[in-house]
Amino acid sequence: MASAPSLFIDNEHLSIATDLYQITMMAGYWALQPDRQATFELFARRLPANRGCLIIAGIEQAIHYLTNLKFAEEDIAFLKKQPALANTNEKFFDYLRNFTFSADVFAVPEGTPIFPDEPIVRVTGSIIEAQLVESYLLSVINAQTLIASKAARIVEAANGKPVFEFGLRRAHGPQAAIYACRAAYIAGFAGTSNVLAAKLLNVPVVGTMAHAWVMASEGEEEALHEFRKLYPQATLLIDTYNTENGAALACRTGEKLSGVRIDSGDLYQSSINVRQILDEAGQATTKIHASGDLNEVLIADLEKIRAAFDFYAVGTELMVSKDSPSLNIVYKLVSVTDNNGRWHPVAKKSFGKRTIGGAKQVHRKLDASGRFSGDIISLDDENIAESRKLLQQIISNGKLCQKLPSLDEIRQYCAKSRQELGSEFFITGADYPKYSVELSPHLKNLQNQVLEAI
Amino acid sequence: MASAPSLFIDNEHLSIATDLYQITMMAGYWALQPDRQATFELFARRLPANRGCLIIAGIEQAIHYLTNLKFAEEDIAFLKKQPALANTNEKFFDYLRNFTFSADVFAVPEGTPIFPDEPIVRVTGSIIEAQLVESYLLSVINAQTLIASKAARIVEAANGKPVFEFGLRRAHGPQAAIYACRAAYIAGFAGTSNVLAAKLLNVPVVGTMAHAWVMASEGEEEALHEFRKLYPQATLLIDTYNTENGAALACRTGEKLSGVRIDSGDLYQSSINVRQILDEAGQATTKIHASGDLNEVLIADLEKIRAAFDFYAVGTELMVSKDSPSLNIVYKLVSVTDNNGRWHPVAKKSFGKRTIGGAKQVHRKLDASGRFSGDIISLDDENIAESRKLLQQIISNGKLCQKLPSLDEIRQYCAKSRQELGSEFFITGADYPKYSVELSPHLKNLQNQVLEAI
Repeated sequence: MASAPSLFIDNEHLSIATDLYQITMMAGYWALQPDRQATFELFARRLPANRGCLIIAGIEQAIHYLTNLKFAEEDIAFLKKQPALANTNEKFFDYLRNFTFSADVFAVPEGTPIFPDEPIVRVTGSIIEAQLVESYLLSVINAQTLIASKAARIVEAANGKPVFEFGLRRAHGPQAAIYACRAAYIAGFAGTSNVLAAKLLNVPVVGTMAHAWVMASEGEEEALHEFRKLYPQATLLIDTYNTENGAALACRTGEKLSGVRIDSGDLYQSSINVRQILDEAGQATTKIHASGDLNEVLIADLEKIRAAFDFYAVGTELMVSKDSPSLNIVYKLVSVTDNNGRWHPVAKKSFGKRTIGGAKQVHRKLDASGRFSGDIISLDDENIAESRKLLQQIISNGKLCQKLPSLDEIRQYCAKSRQELGSEFFITGADYPKYSVELSPHLKNLQNQVLEAI
Repeated sequence: MASAPSLFIDNEHLSIATDLYQITMMAGYWALQPDRQATFELFARRLPANRGCLIIAGIEQAIHYLTNLKFAEEDIAFLKKQPALANTNEKFFDYLRNFTFSADVFAVPEGTPIFPDEPIVRVTGSIIEAQLVESYLLSVINAQTLIASKAARIVEAANGKPVFEFGLRRAHGPQAAIYACRAAYIAGFAGTSNVLAAKLLNVPVVGTMAHAWVMASEGEEEALHEFRKLYPQATLLIDTYNTENGAALACRTGEKLSGVRIDSGDLYQSSINVRQILDEAGQATTKIHASGDLNEVLIADLEKIRAAFDFYAVGTELMVSKDSPSLNIVYKLVSVTDNNGRWHPVAKKSFGKRTIGGAKQVHRKLDASGRFSGDIISLDDENIAESRKLLQQIISNGKLCQKLPSLDEIRQYCAKSRQELGSEFFITGADYPKYSVELSPHLKNLQNQVLEAI
């Protein structure tokens, strides 16, 4: 009997994880302007609802893609069968056979807070190869940036208390769950319940017990007692039937109860009641975990009214960025060479879809107290005094040219960046401060010239 | 230099794509009640906002998972290092070494419209293995059902006109994009722009051209002309600068222009203007494609006011189910054996989190006109006259026991099911009709007994 397909992608087939028009355009460039060079930039058109900035993540998976791109023979055969490519010169498929990505790529470090119009990734190379990579780069960077930007708000709301990612079951599949775990950890989450993600990413893995354990037992007391006997350090789930009763039963499983988890009901009142039950039973060191459809607004409220939780776990709301489930990150041509090899900036002025011509850099200024005081977007070769350049070269001629930071280094950099930007950019329920992003005088002039010439 | 990890899952590591607590509970069951049998059911607690039903998808990837489950030695080593499993008997890890999934699984066919409380998947086997699979099953079925349920509304709104999935760049990564393509196709989409998805799923692949092609050329007229020369059947993108002007230029690329695409601006007015320009230029057979942040509400509006589009393409709004980005599908213990091997139904009565005890079946009744007239949820072994049983056995003793339908067969079955249910369950902007879902008298009695015993 035929088995069911997994639908996982392996490295052999990365190149066709793209939109068909990228391949037809590649073939077109190859036929008409094979020597043309181009720069594309990936940037956000605007901030989504409820976000004061975007936390960039997914660059490492973009690097994986760019440094492993090749066209498998079976994929070339598949392309040749497509009516859309019917008239294509056979030599183009030879070009694909020998294809390796050889462009230069600059990117902001993962964990960087970014604002609209600021280039996040910049690709410069043959227009043929720079065009191909659009769809995949957007996919991996959109996905992780969406989650990291949500996660940063949740971490802020938790007020220093550790937050764990419990969302595998609500992710867009098990691979998306690994991306989401990575993005959440970058933004400050403390760990995950996802074993594979923890192993692949070297992130702390945590777990408690499920309602099924209690329901499969003769009774709740026996269930908690047996679990504790097996796992003396376990966190016990106490809300299967009645939370306060569950807390009392948990106390009877022995001294030095490590933790209890509450997953339903009036979380605030339960936490206060359970804290009292634990304290009166001599379990003052027992931690109380909250879970159950939490988000940053609920967590901020619980913290504000001083609920007695020590840890929070978030699933659904994080995995789909529920209040703001999509980003508007795009990848646009900004500069291209003419037949003489001279570079020309290009731009678009359509309403809501403008682009700024020219290969660019972002300069971030800091004030005397070490806080970000605004950004200047400039042409790539401009120097702006007393600022940090955000875009750094990560790929040179198709090869990785910078040591990849560890995930913990990225997480620390993100924590520092969030602090330098200011917590008010991550707080819920208020308007976000205006962050200054200006074009350099040079870039502004150039943009005016380009738009006039259209 | 260390390369960047892909974060793809291969079959070797499927078993640890789960939450840690599934493993600790497995070890607990193994130690305390290794012979206990259990039935778990996967079902939706409620319908999400704006949905009249759920279209089930993802069963095939669930089957892939269940029939490929094993524990790799390196994953066992990883588990043994976890503090949460510190006290675990070494023989449990031997059990994992020899683990294969050997339960029975029933599921509704993919493409079936489903309502709250109705079992979608039912797993019966050792409680150890039935517990393990919760997180992964939820992940693949949640993800694809979310997209299929959104896609069915978009297809309904398009009023018989073909709709294409253009969303790779907005998916939760390139694997999630393949899942989404599959789910959208099941629900009636006509094809995709995603080459790898098309190849893996045997779905039609389509593509046009991007704004970059126009911007990289000397001028728009030259850009369109050159693309058409290379691809006489191509659909030309005409909105880079001015849509009506672009339409006029497209007409000059030669007779029998296959199609044009409009991606921005006032889509309705542009379609009317462009249709007139095409007709007056003798291009009456040219098709007009719409794209650009479309969703079912916008498409229904365009159809209502008779916009002149022949095809629609949807990306972002589909890939994240933007108006309703998460589902509440859960996997709950419903029956378990005692020490004598006798089955006992179990249930939960927490507010908003109730479960119905006992292994169950869904019976769908049809009225004289062939329309679904309501469902009865019964115990598994009940017979309900004149109705279809929705749950069918797909896995017996861990092995696939039913020929998998092709994706086109699933799509046809879904189209028929949508018709039998009625288009009013997929129409936007109105209240959905109430669909009758009742418990059989037997099941109702049992549920009362179970709840009283808690």
